[in-house]
Amino acid sequence: MNRTTETPVTVVGLGLMGRALAGAFLKAGHPTTVWNRTPSKAGPLVAEGARPAATAGDALRAGPLTIICLTDYPAVRELLGAHENALDGTTLINLTSGDSAQARDTACWAGQRGARYLDGAIMAVPPAIGTAEAEILLSGPRPDFEAHRPALGALGTVTHLGADHGLASLYDVAGLAMMWSVLNGWLQGTALVGTAGVDAATYAPFARRIAALVAEWLPGYAEQIDSGSFPAEVSALETDARAMSHLIEESEAVGVDAGLPRLFKAMADRAIAAGHGGEQYPVLIEEFTTPRAATDDHRR
Amino acid sequence: MNRTTETPVTVVGLGLMGRALAGAFLKAGHPTTVWNRTPSKAGPLVAEGARPAATAGDALRAGPLTIICLTDYPAVRELLGAHENALDGTTLINLTSGDSAQARDTACWAGQRGARYLDGAIMAVPPAIGTAEAEILLSGPRPDFEAHRPALGALGTVTHLGADHGLASLYDVAGLAMMWSVLNGWLQGTALVGTAGVDAATYAPFARRIAALVAEWLPGYAEQIDSGSFPAEVSALETDARAMSHLIEESEAVGVDAGLPRLFKAMADRAIAAGHGGEQYPVLIEEFTTPRAATDDHRR
Repeated sequence: MNRTTETPVTVVGLGLMGRALAGAFLKAGHPTTVWNRTPSKAGPLVAEGARPAATAGDALRAGPLTIICLTDYPAVRELLGAHENALDGTTLINLTSGDSAQARDTACWAGQRGARYLDGAIMAVPPAIGTAEAEILLSGPRPDFEAHRPALGALGTVTHLGADHGLASLYDVAGLAMMWSVLNGWLQGTALVGTAGVDAATYAPFARRIAALVAEWLPGYAEQIDSGSFPAEVSALETDARAMSHLIEESEAVGVDAGLPRLFKAMADRAIAAGHGGEQYPVLIEEFTTPRAATDDHRR
Repeated sequence: MNRTTETPVTVVGLGLMGRALAGAFLKAGHPTTVWNRTPSKAGPLVAEGARPAATAGDALRAGPLTIICLTDYPAVRELLGAHENALDGTTLINLTSGDSAQARDTACWAGQRGARYLDGAIMAVPPAIGTAEAEILLSGPRPDFEAHRPALGALGTVTHLGADHGLASLYDVAGLAMMWSVLNGWLQGTALVGTAGVDAATYAPFARRIAALVAEWLPGYAEQIDSGSFPAEVSALETDARAMSHLIEESEAVGVDAGLPRLFKAMADRAIAAGHGGEQYPVLIEEFTTPRAATDDHRR
């Protein structure tokens, strides 16, 4: 690859993830400027060919595209606020972890100072950066994404979610909710069959198969949510609730924690009490979109 | 298929599922005897070639293999108890829904009366019976399973889980726990991205992909459980817990119910309090194998 033809990029924040990002750009042949509050972190990257910026302002002015990967949004705002005059005309891609409101606020603030801004979330561990397995979600104006798509491709599989800057952070936590859900569902099952002496390795392929099978239902179930109509084509919620009781009783009988199934049942029972017992499972979306206080989690 | 060469089978209990089972046997060419407390339910099956038994005792004596599919275990025990002298030498496959203790008790009871006994769970809706998609889990002595495997193959994909009669029921509820976990994780995410105007159909493929991806981790994570050693190869539990706080805060900020992530966090916090913060997620198995009272579900 001819190094001179690749877009220059800047990486600000050289923690474990920031160093992985800068390393991936270098490997893909991008002239890469780096900056970190503690300059020594830049050492190994400079040895690989990165150019160290003397100040954060220099870093922001070094090229058309700056990737920001700091501890949190207050740190981002503090750093950018100290170098406002370096923002006009540049593009910032902020991969710092935060929530959707922080992303939207920062986009607005940066826009008022002449910067183009994309917010992003990294769904990968640092060692995966630079491989197709590293999933990077971005949100903000599509043209700003398209303009830098080739450079971003050096980091992993990059997806543009939409113009709303809050999307990357929402998808990020939504994906995490799915991750912990699958893991906890698996742990509940592992504990249950473990009471009969089945080891985790024996049970795991079954759990994997069920998770993958149910995942295939989601697009069809999503249609019910979007249409607001939940006919019980396969099973009615009240049938699920009866089976949930069965899961709770079996868990309690064999000495497995039943907190997770009790929460499932409490949510289903509330929907049934609201008259949805004859409808299909996705009707529970109404429980998820109706926040309850922490003290009410198990109340029906 | 030559009807005369197939094993004769009997189906006792002709609810929606029982009728589907008998229909699948008939379609596969098995001479099929049927019995139901309300005889009229047998009508359509008899029209397809089933032989109606006059009494439950006649049904049990009609052939070497009887499939039982009733409302619950008490109904099974009442029926078999009234015809104890028909049990010696026959094989019973009980697909009635129940728990592992009921399965083990019934196996013991039937064995004392000379019957071979397998307990089973059907992980399918009635219309799927007779196709490969219908998953039927069986547990009990392997020779009794092997002896009737060809006939059982008419019903769907049949898996023998082991000699312990309680296994089918444990796998059944474990699979349901995974099913509701995936569905609830998906609903949490759908609600979150929905606050930014993303419709469920747009979000579903992302959720499907994450669920399938995490499912692939399970066999590796299972090895940690079986070895009792949980090194943080990818991520430490305390990192998960911080991200859980983030999910809770984001849910609350955008008006999505946070009951599910609060439960996840409470479990993780208990494990961290027990000194496991630097270990990997599967260390939470200890929380699942340590039952807590319902009132303590959210206590840390």
